[in-house]
Amino acid sequence: MKGFASDNNSGVHPEVMRALFEVNQEHAIGYGGDEVTARTEKRFQEIFGGDAKVFFVYNGTGANVIALQAMTQPFNSIICADTAHIHVDECGAPEKHTGCKLLTLETPDGKLTPQLIEKHLHGFGFEHHAQPGVVSVTQVTELGTLYTPQELRDLSDFVHSRGLYLHLDGARISNAAAALGCSFKEITTDVGVDVLSFGGTKNGLMLGEAVVFLNPDFAHYAKYIRKQTTQLHSKMRFISAQFEVYLKDELWRKNAEHANRMAQLLAHELEQIEGVQITQKVQANSVFAIIPSFITEPLQKKYFFYIWDEVRNEVRWMTSFDTTESDIMGFVRELKYLLQKVN
Amino acid sequence: MKGFASDNNSGVHPEVMRALFEVNQEHAIGYGGDEVTARTEKRFQEIFGGDAKVFFVYNGTGANVIALQAMTQPFNSIICADTAHIHVDECGAPEKHTGCKLLTLETPDGKLTPQLIEKHLHGFGFEHHAQPGVVSVTQVTELGTLYTPQELRDLSDFVHSRGLYLHLDGARISNAAAALGCSFKEITTDVGVDVLSFGGTKNGLMLGEAVVFLNPDFAHYAKYIRKQTTQLHSKMRFISAQFEVYLKDELWRKNAEHANRMAQLLAHELEQIEGVQITQKVQANSVFAIIPSFITEPLQKKYFFYIWDEVRNEVRWMTSFDTTESDIMGFVRELKYLLQKVN
Amino acid sequence: MKGFASDNNSGVHPEVMRALFEVNQEHAIGYGGDEVTARTEKRFQEIFGGDAKVFFVYNGTGANVIALQAMTQPFNSIICADTAHIHVDECGAPEKHTGCKLLTLETPDGKLTPQLIEKHLHGFGFEHHAQPGVVSVTQVTELGTLYTPQELRDLSDFVHSRGLYLHLDGARISNAAAALGCSFKEITTDVGVDVLSFGGTKNGLMLGEAVVFLNPDFAHYAKYIRKQTTQLHSKMRFISAQFEVYLKDELWRKNAEHANRMAQLLAHELEQIEGVQITQKVQANSVFAIIPSFITEPLQKKYFFYIWDEVRNEVRWMTSFDTTESDIMGFVRELKYLLQKVN
Amino acid sequence: MKGFASDNNSGVHPEVMRALFEVNQEHAIGYGGDEVTARTEKRFQEIFGGDAKVFFVYNGTGANVIALQAMTQPFNSIICADTAHIHVDECGAPEKHTGCKLLTLETPDGKLTPQLIEKHLHGFGFEHHAQPGVVSVTQVTELGTLYTPQELRDLSDFVHSRGLYLHLDGARISNAAAALGCSFKEITTDVGVDVLSFGGTKNGLMLGEAVVFLNPDFAHYAKYIRKQTTQLHSKMRFISAQFEVYLKDELWRKNAEHANRMAQLLAHELEQIEGVQITQKVQANSVFAIIPSFITEPLQKKYFFYIWDEVRNEVRWMTSFDTTESDIMGFVRELKYLLQKVN
Repeated sequence: MKGFASDNNSGVHPEVMRALFEVNQEHAIGYGGDEVTARTEKRFQEIFGGDAKVFFVYNGTGANVIALQAMTQPFNSIICADTAHIHVDECGAPEKHTGCKLLTLETPDGKLTPQLIEKHLHGFGFEHHAQPGVVSVTQVTELGTLYTPQELRDLSDFVHSRGLYLHLDGARISNAAAALGCSFKEITTDVGVDVLSFGGTKNGLMLGEAVVFLNPDFAHYAKYIRKQTTQLHSKMRFISAQFEVYLKDELWRKNAEHANRMAQLLAHELEQIEGVQITQKVQANSVFAIIPSFITEPLQKKYFFYIWDEVRNEVRWMTSFDTTESDIMGFVRELKYLLQKVN
Repeated sequence: MKGFASDNNSGVHPEVMRALFEVNQEHAIGYGGDEVTARTEKRFQEIFGGDAKVFFVYNGTGANVIALQAMTQPFNSIICADTAHIHVDECGAPEKHTGCKLLTLETPDGKLTPQLIEKHLHGFGFEHHAQPGVVSVTQVTELGTLYTPQELRDLSDFVHSRGLYLHLDGARISNAAAALGCSFKEITTDVGVDVLSFGGTKNGLMLGEAVVFLNPDFAHYAKYIRKQTTQLHSKMRFISAQFEVYLKDELWRKNAEHANRMAQLLAHELEQIEGVQITQKVQANSVFAIIPSFITEPLQKKYFFYIWDEVRNEVRWMTSFDTTESDIMGFVRELKYLLQKVN
Repeated sequence: MKGFASDNNSGVHPEVMRALFEVNQEHAIGYGGDEVTARTEKRFQEIFGGDAKVFFVYNGTGANVIALQAMTQPFNSIICADTAHIHVDECGAPEKHTGCKLLTLETPDGKLTPQLIEKHLHGFGFEHHAQPGVVSVTQVTELGTLYTPQELRDLSDFVHSRGLYLHLDGARISNAAAALGCSFKEITTDVGVDVLSFGGTKNGLMLGEAVVFLNPDFAHYAKYIRKQTTQLHSKMRFISAQFEVYLKDELWRKNAEHANRMAQLLAHELEQIEGVQITQKVQANSVFAIIPSFITEPLQKKYFFYIWDEVRNEVRWMTSFDTTESDIMGFVRELKYLLQKVN
Repeated sequence: MKGFASDNNSGVHPEVMRALFEVNQEHAIGYGGDEVTARTEKRFQEIFGGDAKVFFVYNGTGANVIALQAMTQPFNSIICADTAHIHVDECGAPEKHTGCKLLTLETPDGKLTPQLIEKHLHGFGFEHHAQPGVVSVTQVTELGTLYTPQELRDLSDFVHSRGLYLHLDGARISNAAAALGCSFKEITTDVGVDVLSFGGTKNGLMLGEAVVFLNPDFAHYAKYIRKQTTQLHSKMRFISAQFEVYLKDELWRKNAEHANRMAQLLAHELEQIEGVQITQKVQANSVFAIIPSFITEPLQKKYFFYIWDEVRNEVRWMTSFDTTESDIMGFVRELKYLLQKVN
C-alpha cells in the first residue's frame, strides 16, 4: 500500500536499480577514485557550468551541514525560514557541526524575501553579535511552494550586496526544475546561488545527495569537510552510478514531472470536495490542506501521512515518482467515503 | 581487474543485491519505521543478547563517532593504538564530533594491552587533565592481527576496573569471528565490550554499518546522536535488508572465511618467495610484507595496493569475499616474474 | 565623566579594591586550592542552601556557557527570549560551546511565561527535532524588568513538569534581589531555579562571576567544563576575595540599591519632560525611553549610552553603584537643554 | 609561607597593584573601547613590530585556544611536544574549541626540532588524514629549557616550507627573553613566529594574557573568536593597565630576571647536595630534580611543590618574581636537614 507521508517513503526507480546491478562488476578504487565517479562529476560540471565542483554524499542533512561548514566560520549566523529543514528537521545538526547560530523568520509560504531577511542584518563588525554569514533557502520550499528564477536572482543580489552568501537546500530541486520548466543551471548557477544541496533520494534514488559548489571558492576544503562530517562513502561507485543514470536522458525530470502531476491531480480532486481546504499553492509534489479532524485517523490507517499543524488540523500529502493515478483516486475515494459516512 | 588495496574495493555480494531488489516494493515508512528494519533490529538482539540495541548507519566513521559520542563527555580522553582507524583514517572526525582528546599508544601489532594502556591512566579527578573515558580497540586490528576472546576479556576487565569503558571498532568483526571460529556474541557481549561498531561494507554489503550497544546505558540518546551526526537514512529498508540477508544463514561467515582463506593462500605462496618478508601474523584477510622497492610500482600497475610504510617499503595486501584463487595465483605469478626479471 | 552606557562601564568598589590589596600576601595554591576560595565557596553555600555548589569564573558569557553545557546534551534546544543575552550578545558562544539550538520567543518586556514557552514544547522523542532541554531566563531582564518570585516559581514548576530545566542568567541578580527586597535564595533556590549565572562585575567587582548549581546533579562535571571552557583562573584568590567582600555585610545589596535608586531618580525626572517617553517599567537599574532623534548624538557626546532600537529611537540608560545624584541631575539638565535649544 | 609549586602561586607585583588602583577612576567604555587599552595595544605594536595585532584575554588556555582557532580549520592537526601545556594541562580545550587533532612527539627536553616534527608531516592532500596545520612550541618549555633564536628561526623556516604555521605558547616568554638577554621581538617576530600566546599572570600580573598576531593574516577574525571563546573582558582597562605597567621600563624583565636568578641559586645549592640529581638544564625559572622519595612528603609539608614523574621521583621547583634568597636558603636548609635526618 502506498502512502502520502513523504516522497522518501517511495522505492528506487527501476533504472536506478539496474545501474546498481551493472556497476557491480569487479573491483574499483574506493572513496571516489573510480571511473564512474569521475565521469559523473564531470557530468555535473557540464550541467551546472564549468566552475562547479560536486561532492557526493549520503543524505540531505549531510549535504546541508557540509555546505554550511564550507560557507561559514563558527561566529557567523545562518538565516533561514522558521520552516526550513535545517532548522526544524535536522536535530540541531547545523549548530553542532558549524558552531553557528541559526536565525529564523516567519513566512506565510516558506519563502524568504529581502524584506524579511533585513530584520537580521545588523550588528556587522560588532563582536558581541554573531556575524550574518549565510542565507539558506529551500527550493521546493518545505511548504511545497516555489521561488521563481527572478526571486532567486533578487535574493542572491541582495544577499551578496550585504556581504553574505546564498545556500540553496535543493532536496527537491528536481521537482522545482520540472515545475518551472527549466534546467538546474537556470535556477542555481545562473541566478547566483553559491552552494547547492542537490537531492536525489526523494526522487528515485536508493540514496545519494550531492553538494554542488557553484562558487568554487567554497570548494577548497570540501573534501576534508565531507570526510570529517562522516559523509564519504567507500564504495562510491554505488552512489555515482545512481546519479549517472539519474542525469542521463533527464530521468530526474521524468520522475519529478510525474510526481508533480500527481499532486496536481490530487489537488484538482480535492478542490471539488467540500470540507477540504487547500492551504498552500500546489506548485510541486505536495498538497497542504485542512481537513475535518474526525477523518484524520481513519484515513491515516489506510494511507499514512503526517499532520503538519495540529491546531488547525492541517495535513501534508506528498506524491512521488511512483505514485499512480489509481493511488490518487483510491485515496480520494476513501477520503470522500469517510466524509460522507459521518454526514 | 581485481586489486588488493582494500576489502572495500570489492563489490556487492549477489545475495545482498537480490535482497535490495526484493525490498524495492511499494512504499515504506522512512527512517527505520518499516518492517524490515524492525525485524533486523530484533535479529541483532538475538545475536548479541537481549539487552543489545542496534542503530544502522552509513559508514564506519559514522558508527565510530556515534559510539564515541554516546560514551563520552567532551572533557574525556579516548585511548587507542596509534594505528587505529579513529586516529589515522578519519580526518579528525572523532575529535570534532566528541570534543575529546585522543591518546595513542605505539604497539608492535596494532593490539592494546592493559600494560600499554596504563601509561595514559593518570590525572583522574585533576581538572587540568582530560579525563580518561574510553579505550577503543579494533578487531581485526589495522595490522591484520586478532585479539583472542581472553585478551578482550582481560582488556574489558582492566578498563572497567579503572572506571573506563570499552569500544570495539569492528569494521572487520566478521573476519575476526570467522578466523576465531566463534559467534559475534562470544567476542563482544560475552567478553565485556560496551559498544561495538559493526561493519558490513567491507564484507559484501553495498553500504551499511551498525552501532551495537551491548551496554544499553549508552543507547539512551543514540537515536538523537545518529540523526545529529547526519547518519540516519530515510529509505532505511535498503540498509536493513542488506543486514537481514547478511545475518541469514551466516552469509557474513561464508564471505569472511573465504576472504581469510585467500589471505592464507597468498601468505603461503609468499613465504616461499625469497625477497618477500611477511611482517605481521596473517590471522584474517590481510598480508603485510616488505618487498623490494623496485617491484612496487610495476606490481601496483597491474594490481593496485597501498604502501603501508614507505621507509621500509612495507606494503599491505587485502583480500575480500570476491577474491578468487586465480586472482591470488595471478598476482603471485606477476610478483615472481617482476622479481626474476631484475635478477 | 560618567556615562549611562552600561553598568560595566563603572569602576571597582573601594572595598573590593581593598580586599584585592589585602589578599596579595605571600603565595597561595593556584586554581582555587587556597583558603580564601574555600571560605567563599562555603559562604555561597550558606547563602544559597546546603546543596549549592559554586564555581568562580571570569565573565558572564563564561558563566552562561558553563551552566548550559552542564545542563544539556548537544541535541537539546535551549529556549529563551529573543532579547536574551545568550542569544543577542554572546557572538554565538552558546551554540558553539554546547552544540545546541537556541529557540527564541518575542516578548513585550523581556519576560518568558509558560504560555509563551509552550510554542517550542513539541517534538519530544522525535529524533528529527532538537529536544527541548533548558529554559533560560534573565533576572533582571535585558529590558530592565523583574520576575516576581511567584512568576519564577510558576516558570520552574511548568518547566520541570515538562521535563526541562531552568537556567537563570543573573548578571544583575543583585539588582533584582535589592529591588524585590529579598535574599538571593528566595529568588533562586526557593523558587526552583536549577542553575544560576551569578553576576558580580556589573555591581562593583573588577571581574568575577559564578556558576551556582542549586540542583547539584548538574555540578558533577562542572570543574572539567569550567577548565575546558577556558574559565579557570590560576590566581583564584583574586576573584574569591572580591566575592568575599561582596557578600560580607551585603555590600552587593548596598551597591544594587544605590544603582536602582539612581534609575528611579532618573525616571522620575524624565517623566516630567515632554518629548521623552519611558517604554519599560523601571524596576531595577535601567531606563528605556524614546527620545527625539535630534538630541541623541549631542547627548551621547557628553554622556555615552547605546541606542536600543534605531527604528523608534529607543535608548537605554543604565545606572551603576557609582552613579551619583549629581551625575543624574547633570544628565537631565543637559537633556533638557538640548530639547529646549531646538524648540 | 612561599612554595615552589608554580610561578602562578605568586602574588601581584606592587607596581601592577598600583596601576590597578590608579585606573579605577570614573567610567570607561567597556570591552576594550577605553583609552588605556588603545594605548597599550599600540605599545604592543611598537614592541613586536608594526603589523602585530594584540588581543588581551584572561588566561593562558584562553590565549592558546584563540590563537589555534585563528590558525586552523577543524580538519587540521596541531603538532606539539607530548609535554606541551596545550596537550597535558588544558583538559582537552584545544580539541574542543578547534575540532582539530593534536599530534604529539616525545622529546628529551620539551623542545621540538624539524627532525622530530617530520614524523607527522605526511598525508597532505589525503582526505582521510587530518591535515598538518600548525606546529606549537612553548618558550620557556614546560621542562624549563629554552629555544635559542636560531632554533626558533630554523623551526619556523622548516614549518613554513612545509605549508604549516608556527604558534608559540609564551606563558613564560618573559623568562625566556630575560634569560636570552634579548627583546620579545627578537625571539618572536624576527624569527618567524606566526602567533604568540603572551603570558603575564605568571610574572607579576593579577591576571592577563595576550594573543599577539605577528602574522596579521590570522588576526582577521580574532575579535569574534575572542568573544565566542568567552575571553573578552567587559572592564578591559583593568587588564590593559596591568600590561601597561608591565611593559613600562621593562618591569617584565626585572621580574623575570629575578625569578631566573632564584632558580640559578637553587640549582647551584642543589648541585652540592649528594642525593639530589638535577635532570634538566636550568635555563629559566624552574629546576627539575630527582630526590630521594622519603623526603618528598615532609618537604612538601613546609614548601608545596609538585611531583613531575612519580616513577623516578622527579620533582619540579619553580621560582617567581617574589621568591627571595632567604626562601631559597630556607628551602635548601630544610632539604638538607631531611636528608641528614634519615642518614
